[in-house]
Amino acid sequence: LTPPTRVSVGRAIAWIDAATNCLDIEKIGLETATGRVLAADIRAANPIPAVDRTAIDGYALHAEDSLGAGAYNPLALTAIAVEAGEALPAGADAVVPRDEVETDEAGRVVLVEPVVSGANIERAGAAAGVGVLLVAAHTGLAPRHIGMLAVAGRVTVPVFHRPRVRLAIAGRARSSAGLDGNGPMLRALIERDGGIVIAAALVDAFAGGADFVIVAGGTGRGHLDRSAAALAASGRVDIHGVALAPGETAGFGHTADQVPVVLLPGAPAACLWNYELFAGRAIRRLGGNDPTLPYAFARVVTARKIVSPIGVTEIRPIRRLADGRVEPLGAFGETEMMAGLAGDGFIIVPEAREGYPAGAQLTAFLYDQGRTGAEPVL
Amino acid sequence: LTPPTRVSVGRAIAWIDAATNCLDIEKIGLETATGRVLAADIRAANPIPAVDRTAIDGYALHAEDSLGAGAYNPLALTAIAVEAGEALPAGADAVVPRDEVETDEAGRVVLVEPVVSGANIERAGAAAGVGVLLVAAHTGLAPRHIGMLAVAGRVTVPVFHRPRVRLAIAGRARSSAGLDGNGPMLRALIERDGGIVIAAALVDAFAGGADFVIVAGGTGRGHLDRSAAALAASGRVDIHGVALAPGETAGFGHTADQVPVVLLPGAPAACLWNYELFAGRAIRRLGGNDPTLPYAFARVVTARKIVSPIGVTEIRPIRRLADGRVEPLGAFGETEMMAGLAGDGFIIVPEAREGYPAGAQLTAFLYDQGRTGAEPVL
Repeated sequence: LTPPTRVSVGRAIAWIDAATNCLDIEKIGLETATGRVLAADIRAANPIPAVDRTAIDGYALHAEDSLGAGAYNPLALTAIAVEAGEALPAGADAVVPRDEVETDEAGRVVLVEPVVSGANIERAGAAAGVGVLLVAAHTGLAPRHIGMLAVAGRVTVPVFHRPRVRLAIAGRARSSAGLDGNGPMLRALIERDGGIVIAAALVDAFAGGADFVIVAGGTGRGHLDRSAAALAASGRVDIHGVALAPGETAGFGHTADQVPVVLLPGAPAACLWNYELFAGRAIRRLGGNDPTLPYAFARVVTARKIVSPIGVTEIRPIRRLADGRVEPLGAFGETEMMAGLAGDGFIIVPEAREGYPAGAQLTAFLYDQGRTGAEPVL
Repeated sequence: LTPPTRVSVGRAIAWIDAATNCLDIEKIGLETATGRVLAADIRAANPIPAVDRTAIDGYALHAEDSLGAGAYNPLALTAIAVEAGEALPAGADAVVPRDEVETDEAGRVVLVEPVVSGANIERAGAAAGVGVLLVAAHTGLAPRHIGMLAVAGRVTVPVFHRPRVRLAIAGRARSSAGLDGNGPMLRALIERDGGIVIAAALVDAFAGGADFVIVAGGTGRGHLDRSAAALAASGRVDIHGVALAPGETAGFGHTADQVPVVLLPGAPAACLWNYELFAGRAIRRLGGNDPTLPYAFARVVTARKIVSPIGVTEIRPIRRLADGRVEPLGAFGETEMMAGLAGDGFIIVPEAREGYPAGAQLTAFLYDQGRTGAEPVL
C-alpha cells in the first residue's frame, strides 16, 4: 500500500491529463449524433447551396427576355413556376415573386417592368464554398450543428467513442434511509459528461472492459476503508490524498491493464467535488470533450470577506445578490450538500490564498445557464 | 382552409401558452431522474443528518470523563473507534481525532487535555430540519439535486411525464444529398427539451397517441405546400403566418382530439427559429420545464448599427468581440444556417423596432454556457 502523500489539486489534475487521451473514433448516423463529440473538422464537400436556386415562390425566367417591358408595353413571357429552395430551371437566371405578377389565359407571366438578372436567386456556394469549415473537431454537437450538417448533405459523422466507466460504490450508507446516495449522483454526472456507466462491485472494479474506473467511498484510513488497498492489490496507487476541501482522501492509480482509476471520498459533497475536478475531467478528456468544469462562469465582486485555509484548494458555495455581487455561504462539509443547493454556484479558492477581502474580484462558477439582465419581452 | 392571417410573435406565444399545460405526474426511481422535471416540492422527511454523528475519523467518548486531563496528568479512557459519518455511540458526546491521540496497550485513548462536549460532532438536523425545502417543484434535476435527494433518503421522486411529440416531415429535400435535414435537427431539439419523438408521415401526423404534433415543411402557399390543408382537413388551423424572420409561414392549430399542432416552415433556419420560439416552448411547458428559450443571455452593447424591418420580429445572429461588445452578422436566410454556426449567439429584434443604433444596450442570447473572464488556474 502506497503511503499517503497529499498532493496539490494542480498536481492531481496533471496526473489526470497525463493518464487520459481521446478514445478511438467511430462513424455514426447524423440523427443519433446530438451531444456526441466530433472527432474531425467537417468541411463542405459541395457548395451550399449545391446549385443556383430560387429564394422565393415565383416564376423563373431569362431576364434578358424581359427587356423593354413597361406599363405601356406589357410583355407576356413563358416562365416556370418555382418554389423557394428549388433549383433554378435550365436557362432561367431570375425569379419574379408569385404574388406580384399577373398571368394570362395561356399561363404566361405578364411583366410591366424588366427583370434584373440574378433577382431572387441564391447562387451555388453563396452560403459556403467547397472546403469551408462547417463544424470543428471537438465540438459537442448541438441541434443547430445537426441542422447545418444535414443541409450540407452529411449522413454520418466521425465522433469519439463514449468512455465506458466502471463505477463501484465501496463506502457505507450515509443517508437516513440507509442508501448510499453517491451511486445515483455519480451515474448522473458520468452521463452528463458523455460516459457510459458500468456498475460493478468493488471486487470487480479493476477488471477489464472499461476505459476508466471510479470507486466511491472507502478512501479514508479507517478499518472500513478498503478501496486504496483493493487498488494496490490489483494494480497500483500513484496518489492517495489531495489538498482539496471538501474531501482530502481521493486516490489515483491504474489497474493491472493500465486503465486509470480515481477513488472518490464517500462523503457526498466531497464525492461531488472530487468527481467534478478529477474523475469528470478524465471522462471529458477521454470522450474528446472540453475538459474544464462544465459550468458557466463570470467575473464577480465578493460583498463579504472570504476566509479559507492556506495550503488547501477550497470549493466554496456562493449566493448571488440582487446587485450582482456574491457572498460566500458556509463551507461544504460532510452533510452540506444543502449548501450547494441553497447557493447559486461556487468559487474555487486556490491553495496559495487565505481567501479574498470584501470587494475583491474573483471568478464564480454558476449552476444556471449564466443569465444576467431580463429576457426581452416578445 | 383558414385564410392566411399573419399574427405577431407575441400573439403566437400567447396561443402556445393557452394551448399547453403541464402533463400528468409519474413517480420514478431517483437513479433515472436526472434531467427530469420535479412535479412537487421535496421537503426533508427526517432531519439531515438523522442522528448525531461524527464528522471525523477518531474515538468517541463522553467529554465529562476527560475533565482534569493534562500534560502532567494523562488520562486513559475507554473510547470507541468511529469513522466520519458514523452515528455517535450511545453515551458519547465528543470525538477526538484518530491522528492526534495515543492509545495504550489496553486500547484505551490517552488524553493530555480535556475534550469539549460536542467536539467534532454533527448534530441531527444540522444540515436540514424536518420540513425544510430541499428541491422545488419545476426544477430540472441536475446531478447535485440527485445527490442531495439521495442523502435525504429519497428513493423515488414525482416528475412530470415527458411529452410525446409526433414529428412529421412534410417538406421536400433541401440538402445537396437530397435529404431533409429538419428531421435530425428537430429530433435533437425535441429531446433537448425533454420530449419523446414519435416519427410519422404527414398522413398519420394528426392521429392520437401524442401530446403535441410538429409538422415540418409544406407551410407555404405553393403547389407542394400541403401541411396547412392537411391539418384543416383533420382538425383546425387557428393561425397561419407569423411576423417572424426567418420564416413567416408557421401554422398553429389542433387535431380533432384537441392535441395542439405547430406547422414549421421547411427552410432550415426558419424551421430552427420557429421551433425554438413556438414548438419548443410548447414542449417545455408540457413537461413542466422553464418555457423560456434555453440559452444563456446577457446585457451587451452593440458595436455596430443593426437594421431590421419594422413589423417583423427578427432573429439576428451576432458575434462577440474581444472587448465584450457584439456585432450583427448577416440575417438568417434560406441557406444561412451558416450564419448561426459562425456566430456566438443571437439577438431578437422586437417587431416594433427598426433595429438598434451603435452603442445601444440589448440582450444577447449565447450558444455557449455564458462564460466571461478566464477560468482560474488550479
